[in-house]
Amino acid sequence: MSTSSIEKDTLPFGSVAELTEAIEIVLRYIIPFLHASEDDYEALTTARHLSTGCYYTGNNLESYVNHPEQLRKLLSLDLPSTGRGLEDIASSTSALLQYSINTSSPGFMDKLWSSPSIPGIAADLLLSALNGNDHVFRVSPALTLIEKHVGEELAHLFGLNGPYSGGINVPGGAAANNTALLVARNVRFPHLKDHGLYGTSSPRLVAFASEAAHFSVFNAAQVLGLGSDFVKKITTTVDGCMDPVALKQALDATVVAGEVPLFICGTAGTTVRGAYDPLENIGKLAHEYNAWFHVDAAWGGAAAFSGKLKHKLAGCDLADSIAYNPHKLLGVPQICSFLLGKDMRTFWYANSLTAGYLFHQDDSIPPSNVFFSPTGSASTGVVGISKNPAKNALDGIHSNWRTSKAIRDAPDPRDVYDLASFTPQCGRRPDAVKLYFHWRYYGAEGIAKQVEGAYDGARYLAQLIDKEPWLRLVGAVNVPCTQVCFYYVGTSLQVTESAQEMARQNTYFTCLISTGLMKRGWMVDYAPGSGRNEELGAFLRVACNRMTTPSVVEGLVQTISEVIYTDIDNTRTNGGKY
Amino acid sequence: MSTSSIEKDTLPFGSVAELTEAIEIVLRYIIPFLHASEDDYEALTTARHLSTGCYYTGNNLESYVNHPEQLRKLLSLDLPSTGRGLEDIASSTSALLQYSINTSSPGFMDKLWSSPSIPGIAADLLLSALNGNDHVFRVSPALTLIEKHVGEELAHLFGLNGPYSGGINVPGGAAANNTALLVARNVRFPHLKDHGLYGTSSPRLVAFASEAAHFSVFNAAQVLGLGSDFVKKITTTVDGCMDPVALKQALDATVVAGEVPLFICGTAGTTVRGAYDPLENIGKLAHEYNAWFHVDAAWGGAAAFSGKLKHKLAGCDLADSIAYNPHKLLGVPQICSFLLGKDMRTFWYANSLTAGYLFHQDDSIPPSNVFFSPTGSASTGVVGISKNPAKNALDGIHSNWRTSKAIRDAPDPRDVYDLASFTPQCGRRPDAVKLYFHWRYYGAEGIAKQVEGAYDGARYLAQLIDKEPWLRLVGAVNVPCTQVCFYYVGTSLQVTESAQEMARQNTYFTCLISTGLMKRGWMVDYAPGSGRNEELGAFLRVACNRMTTPSVVEGLVQTISEVIYTDIDNTRTNGGKY
Repeated sequence: MSTSSIEKDTLPFGSVAELTEAIEIVLRYIIPFLHASEDDYEALTTARHLSTGCYYTGNNLESYVNHPEQLRKLLSLDLPSTGRGLEDIASSTSALLQYSINTSSPGFMDKLWSSPSIPGIAADLLLSALNGNDHVFRVSPALTLIEKHVGEELAHLFGLNGPYSGGINVPGGAAANNTALLVARNVRFPHLKDHGLYGTSSPRLVAFASEAAHFSVFNAAQVLGLGSDFVKKITTTVDGCMDPVALKQALDATVVAGEVPLFICGTAGTTVRGAYDPLENIGKLAHEYNAWFHVDAAWGGAAAFSGKLKHKLAGCDLADSIAYNPHKLLGVPQICSFLLGKDMRTFWYANSLTAGYLFHQDDSIPPSNVFFSPTGSASTGVVGISKNPAKNALDGIHSNWRTSKAIRDAPDPRDVYDLASFTPQCGRRPDAVKLYFHWRYYGAEGIAKQVEGAYDGARYLAQLIDKEPWLRLVGAVNVPCTQVCFYYVGTSLQVTESAQEMARQNTYFTCLISTGLMKRGWMVDYAPGSGRNEELGAFLRVACNRMTTPSVVEGLVQTISEVIYTDIDNTRTNGGKY
Repeated sequence: MSTSSIEKDTLPFGSVAELTEAIEIVLRYIIPFLHASEDDYEALTTARHLSTGCYYTGNNLESYVNHPEQLRKLLSLDLPSTGRGLEDIASSTSALLQYSINTSSPGFMDKLWSSPSIPGIAADLLLSALNGNDHVFRVSPALTLIEKHVGEELAHLFGLNGPYSGGINVPGGAAANNTALLVARNVRFPHLKDHGLYGTSSPRLVAFASEAAHFSVFNAAQVLGLGSDFVKKITTTVDGCMDPVALKQALDATVVAGEVPLFICGTAGTTVRGAYDPLENIGKLAHEYNAWFHVDAAWGGAAAFSGKLKHKLAGCDLADSIAYNPHKLLGVPQICSFLLGKDMRTFWYANSLTAGYLFHQDDSIPPSNVFFSPTGSASTGVVGISKNPAKNALDGIHSNWRTSKAIRDAPDPRDVYDLASFTPQCGRRPDAVKLYFHWRYYGAEGIAKQVEGAYDGARYLAQLIDKEPWLRLVGAVNVPCTQVCFYYVGTSLQVTESAQEMARQNTYFTCLISTGLMKRGWMVDYAPGSGRNEELGAFLRVACNRMTTPSVVEGLVQTISEVIYTDIDNTRTNGGKY
């Protein structure tokens, strides 16, 4: 190879001056985009309507949601042979803003995240420029220390105060739930790591979550080879919370069937209705039945920042693991997601591959069919367990794995700096830095104020909807989180006694209102009803957020009324059928 | 709730003007940080030494790599009650840059990624400000179309040209390998999704990868419940490539044992030596034995962009899935990782949870113990398979799953716009947009030039090291990828015939040189030897990248000489023992 063919004097891919220009170009385009959301806010405050709303360039984007092929034609998707340089940064940025949803608009109430925070965006820019990686300390010293510290502080915020508590970044809430189940499985049955789940020597492992839990909990069981059938869906009470009586029954049935209650997931803020499961009750049952207690607080965990709201999370101190996503209500830009642990040695033990010699059953604790409760008292579990040979397969699985020798022998997590050893991932963007910037920018008090504002906004919205004769709330007016769910119950509904027909009508009008809002710049999603009397067919679900001040609430309710008065009446006048 | 307690007129979390200021602050700090790497490059070109190197603020950072608790004291980690606003953006940014590795320095040759690209950083800023999410089309129309298009174009680049080919963003190479194995498992044995791996009805599923494959392949098997023991490590030839003869033997042994060859992973560019497995041979064996063929091209896949280098990837057209990380050699900022598929219907089929009715064994194809080869000709597999009752458990698993009815009945992936249905994740940052910006900025030709530059740099480095009497290359001088691996073999080594003693000496001098380089601003990692004669003890591994021009190579070799002449001689003079 001749060296003369290679230029010696110029960098092959651009200069810092070019980078500066590229960032300034992006900034130039995003400023008016984000200003539009300020205009929205201003227009709502003064006149109760949105200025541009979620569709920066007008309502036409709404139509593309159902016709992606039309949008494709408008986008320049080609990937050329010859580079276009800075010119393309401008045109691509402009096009992408033109055809994207403006999640910073106060009208965006469709999903459980919303406008990105200022310090979060700044931190993300810094992370991109640093291009660090939190897998090993050697190449990311400061980034690692920040992730460790933020994980520990979050764990404390949720009541996990033991010496080994902490947290780790994961690539989203689904990954958090998946990793939690993985840790539970491997800590409890270490031989599965090497040998897999085959054969009769492996007892059936059962997980439990409410029927309103996130789909990723059920998916985690299929991914990990446990089978999604073996996540028992526990019924909810009328408020959408897991029924602890039903949970206890399911646990007993599992034990009687000779299966192992491995993992109980309580949800703090369900995806649709925002219900907080009774975590203290669930956590006590988990300890009584010797199961891993996981709390999916990906959404509702934001309450931990508020002195007024954190009572909703009572019981989290019993958790072995907690999923929490600052990229949801807090507004840290995506992705920023954590899996917190009461004892991070379990994370290390479950994920460490190279230290295979550690991964054996702990024989220091004799097999027993006695469940260990956290208080030290023991209940004898279920009658007959030791009499039935099939159930004797459970021998050895009731050991107190939380304090097993293997866990005690694991390294002190405070001294582990190569963070990839706590997770099944390898390379990881140091997302914790975004929360670090966010936390220091607003302070815990500032974050609390924003979180409380979102919860207050939802309660105010629920109050206004409760007063509207043509709307009916799903659930009580005192909503548990920031979602407000409701049906249209106006005069356009035809009288029917058929639940099926009622569901069809409800779904029709729900979609009509969602579309009507969309045309007016708002985005409000809907969710399928459970099929119970109070949830027949799809209903509207407004996700309030940091932007949801009273003016926003009032503007939304006014627009819903407008949709009902115009779009729904028009439908009838035009002979439209639902 | 009274509304009067809430401010009506101001946004609770800041204005666009504040955001602009925050970004400008970050920009102000990262410019000199990145300029330092330009100075490095300039100093190498003119005087063959680094200016500041990987440690922006001097060599002291090197000492913290072994003493994290000292660094912790220097960082302000506290998370305050009261917010500090813009002032903290400045101080936190400054501190983080001060105590981070400068991956943009040409001296950073430690890992398989390096300096982030200009368009990638710009796109990341845009993504943060948009705060979109590629899980459902409704909230991310343009972002979704870009991810679909980039995935398809990448698939084509690797020779996957069928109508159903495409790709999906995943949160890293480990996740890509994990998802590939998940898809293979679920497509082949759909009932596992619901029922798990328990019981004797599930035959043992076996995966195959070379002993030099990435650890995540072995870890994927433990995560998915197959057990890491059931990834057969295939020996490599002396060049570090998987030996196809050994693979064939392992496949035959598996079939004879009544186990199922499920998944064969070929590696295109191994982590340590950059070896490209013989993908055509491996792919043909995969089809012959009816196994899923996965190529882990996370690292070496960059060759696909170059007409000169893409021959290394011959055989990728046989793959069912390919992992590829543009955040490695291309320089797209982390994370930007893809899993590409020959037939994206398999991804949908394997990950879709709600369409459970589809996930049953395909009975339209009669059980058979005949392997289907891709050319349509059939080999009868292994002698005796139908005579042994134990092996008859394999009946039904040799169906042609690639064209099963279930796959044919899956929706056309070109018409699927809710991309979360292709993956086990839920929310996802639209990382494809970073590659989209990168590709359009440099063009395929520009990318090819950068990739070829890195490969050329590695070959030049290998040539120079080959000429140094005190250094010995691991492997041939014509290195397969951009890594160059070598040992110190100078006079400081004591004469020994013990392999163990030799390994100990080698590891000692390798660490000494790595540390010596670190003190001079370079970062070069080392890897454990395989224990064979040519790999006794840890050796140095230089990962060349887009920055590695001839001047950089010459500067590195000069510094290695300096380390040997000063640090190693000093060790001897001072009576130091290795």
